[in-house]
Amino acid sequence: MSDRGITPGEGQDHRSTSVPVVEGESALHALSDYLHDDMQACNRAIVERMDSPVPLIPQLAAHLVAAGGKRLRPLLTLAAARLCGYPSDADHQRHVGLAACVEFIHTATLLHDDVVDESQLRRGLASANAVFGNKASVLVGDFLFARSFQLMTADGSLKVMAILSSASATIAEGEVLQMATQNDLSTSVAQYLDVIHGKTAALFAAACRVGAVVADRPDAEEEALGNFGTNLGMAFQLVDDALDYAADQATLGKTVGDDFREGKITLPVLTAFAAGSEEDRTFWRRVIEDNQQTEADLDHAFALIRDTDAIAITLARATEYADAAKAALSIFPPSRLRDILLETASYTVSRAR
Amino acid sequence: MSDRGITPGEGQDHRSTSVPVVEGESALHALSDYLHDDMQACNRAIVERMDSPVPLIPQLAAHLVAAGGKRLRPLLTLAAARLCGYPSDADHQRHVGLAACVEFIHTATLLHDDVVDESQLRRGLASANAVFGNKASVLVGDFLFARSFQLMTADGSLKVMAILSSASATIAEGEVLQMATQNDLSTSVAQYLDVIHGKTAALFAAACRVGAVVADRPDAEEEALGNFGTNLGMAFQLVDDALDYAADQATLGKTVGDDFREGKITLPVLTAFAAGSEEDRTFWRRVIEDNQQTEADLDHAFALIRDTDAIAITLARATEYADAAKAALSIFPPSRLRDILLETASYTVSRAR
Repeated sequence: MSDRGITPGEGQDHRSTSVPVVEGESALHALSDYLHDDMQACNRAIVERMDSPVPLIPQLAAHLVAAGGKRLRPLLTLAAARLCGYPSDADHQRHVGLAACVEFIHTATLLHDDVVDESQLRRGLASANAVFGNKASVLVGDFLFARSFQLMTADGSLKVMAILSSASATIAEGEVLQMATQNDLSTSVAQYLDVIHGKTAALFAAACRVGAVVADRPDAEEEALGNFGTNLGMAFQLVDDALDYAADQATLGKTVGDDFREGKITLPVLTAFAAGSEEDRTFWRRVIEDNQQTEADLDHAFALIRDTDAIAITLARATEYADAAKAALSIFPPSRLRDILLETASYTVSRAR
Repeated sequence: MSDRGITPGEGQDHRSTSVPVVEGESALHALSDYLHDDMQACNRAIVERMDSPVPLIPQLAAHLVAAGGKRLRPLLTLAAARLCGYPSDADHQRHVGLAACVEFIHTATLLHDDVVDESQLRRGLASANAVFGNKASVLVGDFLFARSFQLMTADGSLKVMAILSSASATIAEGEVLQMATQNDLSTSVAQYLDVIHGKTAALFAAACRVGAVVADRPDAEEEALGNFGTNLGMAFQLVDDALDYAADQATLGKTVGDDFREGKITLPVLTAFAAGSEEDRTFWRRVIEDNQQTEADLDHAFALIRDTDAIAITLARATEYADAAKAALSIFPPSRLRDILLETASYTVSRAR
């Protein structure tokens, strides 16, 4: 868990950093549109390959597919392959199968996360564990993970398998570390960054790398795409953690205040805690460390986070990662797809504004 | 889930089948002794490779290692490699690493099983979920599964990866099917056999096959070892299911009556239900389907199972599988190791007597 992208200067005062406003929020749509045919093929592969003679498996998996989601990770695999010049014809469909692998790994981790977090909502709909129970979610997650490795084996690239098995181990490490830091306000910002690197950025990076591998490009391009993915993932998770204290449920598709109620340690909380008065810190210790929360506490937490500029500070850090993601793409020649990926990096932050 | 080893004639009356008594119960010790050096190396590999910068991972994994267990599955990989003439020198250690992979997959499924079953005991000690919580067990299971695929990738055989990823998917399918049949007395014997093929026999078979693959033997030998593993696994699980209604806790290392309390559908229950009076069936429906159990019900279940010869019938079926396992080894020339594996198949059943 050493590579967590750029290391923005800690202790620097981000309060005055201005976050550039990006026009529209259509970058993801542009990405989906550009990769429309590939993504259709990927969606078909996902549905076909999650099939099983055990009916509950496709039933539960269909619940997740119906819930939609942005499919950001498989889009990254498809985009990376295209950016690296992977041919667009019927003989070159490896990127589609591997994008499905990436989505299977992601879905497996979502299923297990929701069990671990006891979440009732996922993307604005009832979570799989709420509908099918924890047991089914654990086991179908295991199935999707195993199926993902079956598909990789069929693809046949040891390099791809090394990238995705290593990312999978890092994800689990990140999740365990997150669990270990839960309710612990002595968690350092560095530990928090390790957590989000593991739980989010590692798979973003792997998804991008895999695209470069199928296109058989030089290491420098794989490396550049890995850096793009890592930094994009860091920005994405920082913004997600900010939104949990800022967005309304409809925008985010999850319950605002979930992280608060779970005593999850995120940058907004660490920032507000570090900048708070002794009275504020007593409040944070009670609600986060002792997990003693009353109805009014979430509003008070919002107020403290606002008073300490914790959201702006978190978004400023996300912007640094988004900028690093964009910089990583500079080795590729200008193209429509590169522009869309640059816009996607900007959108990752601008969606919070 | 088509191959569940032999298909013993269903509807046949097994009540008069005599189960051969095998001398001693030392077959597993003989196997461990014969493979002593390999197994020492495998244990070292297990400890080394479950390491992680996240301290909770090796801590939880060490809890499982301390709990011991027979390590039957890695022993099968080591034994299969040796039976196929894999050389015994420092340049030939692939079987050791892959035996560790097999144990990691098994340990991951145990961790998840104990969460799914809400078990408090594992091998006579507190289960990992009882000590570390469900969350840690889910996530460390995921880590071990991912780590197993990292190790396979390092080994570099696509054939091994195909075998073990496919077995992993089959295990998850078996577990989901088991969950779907829980509390359902209309489950057929065929469905029950599918469940135990998935949850147990598939990994036994894969563990054996992998040994043949590293020794680079003809398909016929890999096939034979696969059959040996499948049938051994079926016998093993049938006996385990019998023991849950027969053994005392010290012998089995788990709480007798666990399956009963969970409403798990096993052959002893299906047999007693099928052979029972209308009053008996009403009893089984209340305790297994409606999950309404009182203190005295387990003893009454024992009595019904005894009255219908359900244990003897289950063990007779296990003996058929054990015999099929032994028959599968006939293509290998006689050797000390083959004898030990034949004894191991016998012991799988004789341990219940």
